[in-house]
Amino acid sequence: MQQTNRQWILKSRPKGTVSTDCFELKEAPMPQPDYAAGKFLVKNLWLSYDAAMRGWMSLKPSYMPPVDLGDPMRSFNVAQVVKSETPELPVGTLLQGMYGWQEYATASPTDMVPHRKLNRFITPEMALGVLGGSSTTAFWGLMDIGKPKKGETVVVSGAAGATGSVAAQIAKLKGCRVIGIAGGEEKCRWLIEKAGLDGAIDYKNDDVDERLKELCPEGINIFYDNVGGSILEAAINSIADYGRIVLCGAISISNSKEPRVGPRNLVNLVIRRVRMQGFIALDYYDRTDEALAQLAVWAMEDKIAFRNDVQEGFENIPSTFMRLFEGRNQGKQLLKLADPEPTES
Amino acid sequence: MQQTNRQWILKSRPKGTVSTDCFELKEAPMPQPDYAAGKFLVKNLWLSYDAAMRGWMSLKPSYMPPVDLGDPMRSFNVAQVVKSETPELPVGTLLQGMYGWQEYATASPTDMVPHRKLNRFITPEMALGVLGGSSTTAFWGLMDIGKPKKGETVVVSGAAGATGSVAAQIAKLKGCRVIGIAGGEEKCRWLIEKAGLDGAIDYKNDDVDERLKELCPEGINIFYDNVGGSILEAAINSIADYGRIVLCGAISISNSKEPRVGPRNLVNLVIRRVRMQGFIALDYYDRTDEALAQLAVWAMEDKIAFRNDVQEGFENIPSTFMRLFEGRNQGKQLLKLADPEPTES
Repeated sequence: MQQTNRQWILKSRPKGTVSTDCFELKEAPMPQPDYAAGKFLVKNLWLSYDAAMRGWMSLKPSYMPPVDLGDPMRSFNVAQVVKSETPELPVGTLLQGMYGWQEYATASPTDMVPHRKLNRFITPEMALGVLGGSSTTAFWGLMDIGKPKKGETVVVSGAAGATGSVAAQIAKLKGCRVIGIAGGEEKCRWLIEKAGLDGAIDYKNDDVDERLKELCPEGINIFYDNVGGSILEAAINSIADYGRIVLCGAISISNSKEPRVGPRNLVNLVIRRVRMQGFIALDYYDRTDEALAQLAVWAMEDKIAFRNDVQEGFENIPSTFMRLFEGRNQGKQLLKLADPEPTES
Repeated sequence: MQQTNRQWILKSRPKGTVSTDCFELKEAPMPQPDYAAGKFLVKNLWLSYDAAMRGWMSLKPSYMPPVDLGDPMRSFNVAQVVKSETPELPVGTLLQGMYGWQEYATASPTDMVPHRKLNRFITPEMALGVLGGSSTTAFWGLMDIGKPKKGETVVVSGAAGATGSVAAQIAKLKGCRVIGIAGGEEKCRWLIEKAGLDGAIDYKNDDVDERLKELCPEGINIFYDNVGGSILEAAINSIADYGRIVLCGAISISNSKEPRVGPRNLVNLVIRRVRMQGFIALDYYDRTDEALAQLAVWAMEDKIAFRNDVQEGFENIPSTFMRLFEGRNQGKQLLKLADPEPTES
């Protein structure tokens, strides 16, 4: 085994927009797991890219401590156990967890986000894709915060993204009329033709406010928001009585240098008796099996259109992150480092 | 009985700030109730002034149709039945309902907001004051939307106002630590000395954002918001995990000509998993007795400090409305037109 461990460390915190300059390649010594403390060594196979990672780079107090400067960037991964004296986690075991932007990592059962063993029927690409954190996020946000009822009108922003596309399709499966908002014609066509939505709005070319009024004449019952900013304001303009706004993130404002703007029409939340609620998918981590039981059935029945955008190569880790903020990813952004080693069993 | 009915009609809709120019005095013929349709005639005794009235002047779609130009301005009132063939509402009966800015009105059981008979132990001043709509609004917003738990930190904006002061004191009665935000030293002193709050912030002289951080080091569990705008943004900066924001109104933005600003920090609602929810007290109208049963006990036990600001005179109806938006009212703004006529029973 190699003696060094390549890492992409956080070199500086972004001022506004993230750039690849925030990261630096470093060669660290290969970590040695403290077996007595229950630790083991994993090799990273796949990286998941999530909008939440932008928040972890900032010093702003949040639901997780910020990544320290000089530490590898934090991420969700699929990895394989390569050194272990833990009987229930033998060498070869495939795990999901947070192992960061590095080739190898030591891990332990007391990690901030506990690892989960990969089901043997699930590939890493599925585990981080259609059955990954983006999909469970979509599931909990829509089902537990949005609480869709049959026949309701649901609007999803960032609808071609990994979370948005699943939220929109779950809403369809629950009998709702669903409109997606996404950037560009290609994405909008995908929403209609592949994801089966009832309407799509191209925020780069359409007047979102006007189009929402046209497409939702009875108002929006649930707005599942992945972007914030002016699109949130437009949705609040069309919100229906007793509407619910699921705040899943705010990628449009979290990565901007420009002065942020907030929705100026919150008085509508009063007039329309609206509940607007933020959530963090990690709060539902203990209930992951519950979400997966349902998502796996839909995935097997081919009822959820889902695209993975798979990049490759350790050197491309930071540049692939940029794809997310530039809207260049075509579906869930992943990066593959290596295939699993075959195990004996 | 006089042959004419003086009214203050809505002459023009406000562009931004309300002014007395929006209203015009008119002499209309005395209305004749259609007894066959269950109608009866009431004489207005008291007028209540509520921030929500600003919304009813606007054409913006809302939970009630706008007041038509040329119609008397809509308001909550206490009135006395002066002509009636309805057996359960004999002449002399005191009622609460919406009879508007006029001396006399016809009313019927099918009015948009049904009238309620005044309990014989309750004066008109109490019925529109400590046991009036402002207090039931405070009750439902805090109890049903905010859901306070003992030991939590509750912050109330517009805390010296009729709704805010009651919301703050109910929170105290429920065992919370309560900070009030109000304009001016006198109001802040009242909050501490009379309403018994744990802290007060004078938004005219203090840096609200800084003071909230000082006074709520563990974060705000419930923010009961009567004002919106920059004060809402400051509260969102200090919101605690799983905090609740009760949106009761947005007087600071609803009456402004300046470009409104929205809170630019809604991403905090995600990070902190916050529920922000608007409500309209009229939705709880059928449950008014439930709120009054509790409020009446507290009022009788002298546990709720409450001030009525009583003006007089039909000619002063529009100018008294202005007191609300200029923050000149010292407590609940009322206007008295007449005493009830004694009844024979």
